[in-house]
Amino acid sequence: MIHYQDILDAIYLELAPHFGEGRIATYIPELAKIDPRQFGMAVLTADGHLYQVGQAETPFSIQSISKLFTLTMAMDAPTLWQRTGREPSGNAFNSLVQLEYENGIPRNPFINAGAMVVTDLILAKHGNAKEAVLRFVRHLSGQDHIAFNMTVAASEESVGYRNKALAYFLKSFGNITGDVEVVLDAYFHHCSIEMSCTELVKAGMYLMNHGASSGSQILDFSQTKQVNSLMLTCGTYDAVGDFAYQVGLPAKSGVGGGILAVMPEQFVVAVWSPGLNEVGNSLLGTRALSLFTTKTGMSVF
Amino acid sequence: MIHYQDILDAIYLELAPHFGEGRIATYIPELAKIDPRQFGMAVLTADGHLYQVGQAETPFSIQSISKLFTLTMAMDAPTLWQRTGREPSGNAFNSLVQLEYENGIPRNPFINAGAMVVTDLILAKHGNAKEAVLRFVRHLSGQDHIAFNMTVAASEESVGYRNKALAYFLKSFGNITGDVEVVLDAYFHHCSIEMSCTELVKAGMYLMNHGASSGSQILDFSQTKQVNSLMLTCGTYDAVGDFAYQVGLPAKSGVGGGILAVMPEQFVVAVWSPGLNEVGNSLLGTRALSLFTTKTGMSVF
Amino acid sequence: MIHYQDILDAIYLELAPHFGEGRIATYIPELAKIDPRQFGMAVLTADGHLYQVGQAETPFSIQSISKLFTLTMAMDAPTLWQRTGREPSGNAFNSLVQLEYENGIPRNPFINAGAMVVTDLILAKHGNAKEAVLRFVRHLSGQDHIAFNMTVAASEESVGYRNKALAYFLKSFGNITGDVEVVLDAYFHHCSIEMSCTELVKAGMYLMNHGASSGSQILDFSQTKQVNSLMLTCGTYDAVGDFAYQVGLPAKSGVGGGILAVMPEQFVVAVWSPGLNEVGNSLLGTRALSLFTTKTGMSVF
Amino acid sequence: MIHYQDILDAIYLELAPHFGEGRIATYIPELAKIDPRQFGMAVLTADGHLYQVGQAETPFSIQSISKLFTLTMAMDAPTLWQRTGREPSGNAFNSLVQLEYENGIPRNPFINAGAMVVTDLILAKHGNAKEAVLRFVRHLSGQDHIAFNMTVAASEESVGYRNKALAYFLKSFGNITGDVEVVLDAYFHHCSIEMSCTELVKAGMYLMNHGASSGSQILDFSQTKQVNSLMLTCGTYDAVGDFAYQVGLPAKSGVGGGILAVMPEQFVVAVWSPGLNEVGNSLLGTRALSLFTTKTGMSVF
Repeated sequence: MIHYQDILDAIYLELAPHFGEGRIATYIPELAKIDPRQFGMAVLTADGHLYQVGQAETPFSIQSISKLFTLTMAMDAPTLWQRTGREPSGNAFNSLVQLEYENGIPRNPFINAGAMVVTDLILAKHGNAKEAVLRFVRHLSGQDHIAFNMTVAASEESVGYRNKALAYFLKSFGNITGDVEVVLDAYFHHCSIEMSCTELVKAGMYLMNHGASSGSQILDFSQTKQVNSLMLTCGTYDAVGDFAYQVGLPAKSGVGGGILAVMPEQFVVAVWSPGLNEVGNSLLGTRALSLFTTKTGMSVF
Repeated sequence: MIHYQDILDAIYLELAPHFGEGRIATYIPELAKIDPRQFGMAVLTADGHLYQVGQAETPFSIQSISKLFTLTMAMDAPTLWQRTGREPSGNAFNSLVQLEYENGIPRNPFINAGAMVVTDLILAKHGNAKEAVLRFVRHLSGQDHIAFNMTVAASEESVGYRNKALAYFLKSFGNITGDVEVVLDAYFHHCSIEMSCTELVKAGMYLMNHGASSGSQILDFSQTKQVNSLMLTCGTYDAVGDFAYQVGLPAKSGVGGGILAVMPEQFVVAVWSPGLNEVGNSLLGTRALSLFTTKTGMSVF
Repeated sequence: MIHYQDILDAIYLELAPHFGEGRIATYIPELAKIDPRQFGMAVLTADGHLYQVGQAETPFSIQSISKLFTLTMAMDAPTLWQRTGREPSGNAFNSLVQLEYENGIPRNPFINAGAMVVTDLILAKHGNAKEAVLRFVRHLSGQDHIAFNMTVAASEESVGYRNKALAYFLKSFGNITGDVEVVLDAYFHHCSIEMSCTELVKAGMYLMNHGASSGSQILDFSQTKQVNSLMLTCGTYDAVGDFAYQVGLPAKSGVGGGILAVMPEQFVVAVWSPGLNEVGNSLLGTRALSLFTTKTGMSVF
Repeated sequence: MIHYQDILDAIYLELAPHFGEGRIATYIPELAKIDPRQFGMAVLTADGHLYQVGQAETPFSIQSISKLFTLTMAMDAPTLWQRTGREPSGNAFNSLVQLEYENGIPRNPFINAGAMVVTDLILAKHGNAKEAVLRFVRHLSGQDHIAFNMTVAASEESVGYRNKALAYFLKSFGNITGDVEVVLDAYFHHCSIEMSCTELVKAGMYLMNHGASSGSQILDFSQTKQVNSLMLTCGTYDAVGDFAYQVGLPAKSGVGGGILAVMPEQFVVAVWSPGLNEVGNSLLGTRALSLFTTKTGMSVF
């Protein structure tokens, strides 16, 4: 019998002296304004209990965690694995080097280039990629008020030269079929979605639950395992080995300071703390998850 | 209740028409002579049952699977994680490129350069790295007859120019402290160790068992999880993402055609089939493990 | 006493059986339509004589030869050598790899990224970079009818995704200060300028003449030598070593099939033949220049 | 009429306040002991006059300048240009990266890997590559006392791990046919040859003289131009563009602080000053040559 609430409370106490550590992502002007001393955490267990600590209900910019939801939407696209690989990149998330050496095929759907290809697939299927993803996230979490932060989206768009470079580079290899500016607009908006830890664990329920979530089957048994495996090998930027070593759970992180992780059949956990470590994962978020798997004794290894 | 023997038999039947597929590693003259149509598999469960199919008792060259045992021996070396990283490389196992960009620190202990650094650590501690590893493997498996194949070791040494280049490159960065030729000699001998699938699952028992194996504690609880995580993120050459996607188990492969995999608290499984896929993992071995996790419904995801 | 006309005639005769060899640049739809069997050559000597053979007066798309003129215009920009290097790249002319490793500083002003930075410098100084360069080329050659080919410019712009990627990548490093789309528009137009071999040798007169050209001083003594040195070490894509070995003259080539070369104090020579070799220099143009330096016995070496 | 002696004297005076600047190559223990305040320069003109200033007769370690002489010896080897390229590398002289990407074919004969291939060619032809090169250098300069510095050779051999890595890497690609240790031994000895500036200009006479030197024809007319072109595009490490821009002469430098340069049909010039700039060329040597071409008004551009 694991006492999740006690564990969350203990983690909060242990990390409280460190709140504010790490560096905020400043390349997006709007994100740079955030108060770095915030910390929230939420756990949803297989038996339906929800546990929270700190600012578990404060919405924040999910940024690259959105790549988990776009991938989920595209898992049945027939050309998905022709147009992106599924290997860790061994390089920065926004690197163009590997893309050039590997002829425009991104290493995996969780680096920026891969997520743009996935967005392009969603665009081809749904017409309006921007709205389709927002609708999907609302459906997953059962929260209709979830929305883009238009200021953040505009902020990213105004300085997102490297992402523009990536998108045009993909287009030059023929690996974006839609209009580059439309794909980028959708991509920037997905990153700007705001959710709380509590909303994230609800949205991620299907990951622990063989693909099922509040009555609907989001993915099948196999696909769910596949998405979880991709989170573990590619989900935490250029630190997947270290993250698996420290935490031992499939996870997807974002530069907004959020991380969503899953222990299949057991729990979904989300944590948020804006300060990042040197590879771009939340510094205290990673530490909180490491404490969580140590204290619960539960990890996939 | 999983019927392991039935599952092994079914896998054997399903793969039998494909025996001999894949390409044998021919760069080591002695390995090129092997009969490619061989196939063996063994499973050891947490409750102590052993299941076998095919040539489960035929010894073969474990090659890079030895890197798992050398890493295990070095897990308590204080400088281990200063001298090697723990990230997937995203490059070929014998590439020098990343080593140059990253100043002589190998990406992880499972690529050749990393294993040489580990061998150097063992050399510094045990004096005779070559024999120390052989003794350790015999102890783990309880099989005193396990031995080097001197012809294979000599064969690798005679053509191992790239490995020599790697070792001298490491030395140029100061990341080999011992004599380069001594380290290489030990390294080539470790790769030449011959074991059967059955011996491998016995040797790997500690990986499913929180570090305990036939009365001795090989690694502690945490270290065992860490080694398993490294197998998952770095253990199968430049295909860890795909392997996790297809198989979903921590594993270490070798160009001799063997793969050792583990489901914590449940089972250790070893498979052997000499034909390799394009990244150097056993072609039918990978397929067998994929069938195994599908049919048992058990993987870490 | 060198008989230039005889030499040109002999070269024409020798190469005539090969007219049409090489491959046309097809990535720009408009250029792909050209008749590959054309060949022209013109020589302007220090004493003012002009020699011609073949289609020496047929205008063609100068493409990257324009980079020579834009560099010349920017030679007195104070930040030029902070914003671009002057080393051969060792990579394809449109590679993004080196740019990423070297933080957005292009290797030299003759690769695409470097020419975009130069265009940005001209934009900052002249306001209208597009027209400023055209005016400059008209002035150099004394030919007011020289113009952009608007169809070629539009053609390049419509498929120039890789160049867009390069420009946004430069912008992401802060190495383009102006508006990316304005820089690109100017860049594409410069490449689309059409000139004949005869017009090119007139425009290049300053390169053999210590910077002086028809009464005006385009560059000073030192700058002229510097531009010539840059042509030799960086002017012929990723084949500068081979070009120096075969031809032995400072030169700038373009994918339209033109090459402009100079023997200081002696002559300027231009050649045009649309078929390219595997690195993007005119196949017969390179051969013609090699014959020219052999037959005249004149090269810088 | 150029007053060479006056120019040399003026250069000496101008640079004297800077003697000792730059950093000595310290990776070879024996070279690290040198007095950094030394400076010598010698010029040999086409009409046979010799001009000297400073320590023009002090022997120093020619290091990579030896690569010029080994290349000269191998210019008629039929497989030379299959086994090495002739392009600037764009990378450090001892990089292994490019060698891996380009399958063991060094970019040019002036980087370490290329010079090892050249040494291997000489070994195949002469049996004793070590002595053959020494004999050749003695013959070129007419100085029979020129010798290896055995202490320097041993010093380089004892720490030359990166060069060993390079050599074994070449061997792994089949681009060294002889015994690696024999090739390395010859290579290290060639680098250890000691010559003075005066001896170097005599040895380099053929480079300004269409291949002829004191009665014998070392190279033919074409080959001489080719070697000069290779010096210009590949002779000064990863700074050929900058060197051509500043100096404007074909040249070969060494980490011992020497540089040998040539103005075809006019002069050979050698300079020596042990302090190096950040790319490994003599700091004051480069400045001296820049002053020399400015003051004489003579460069190939």
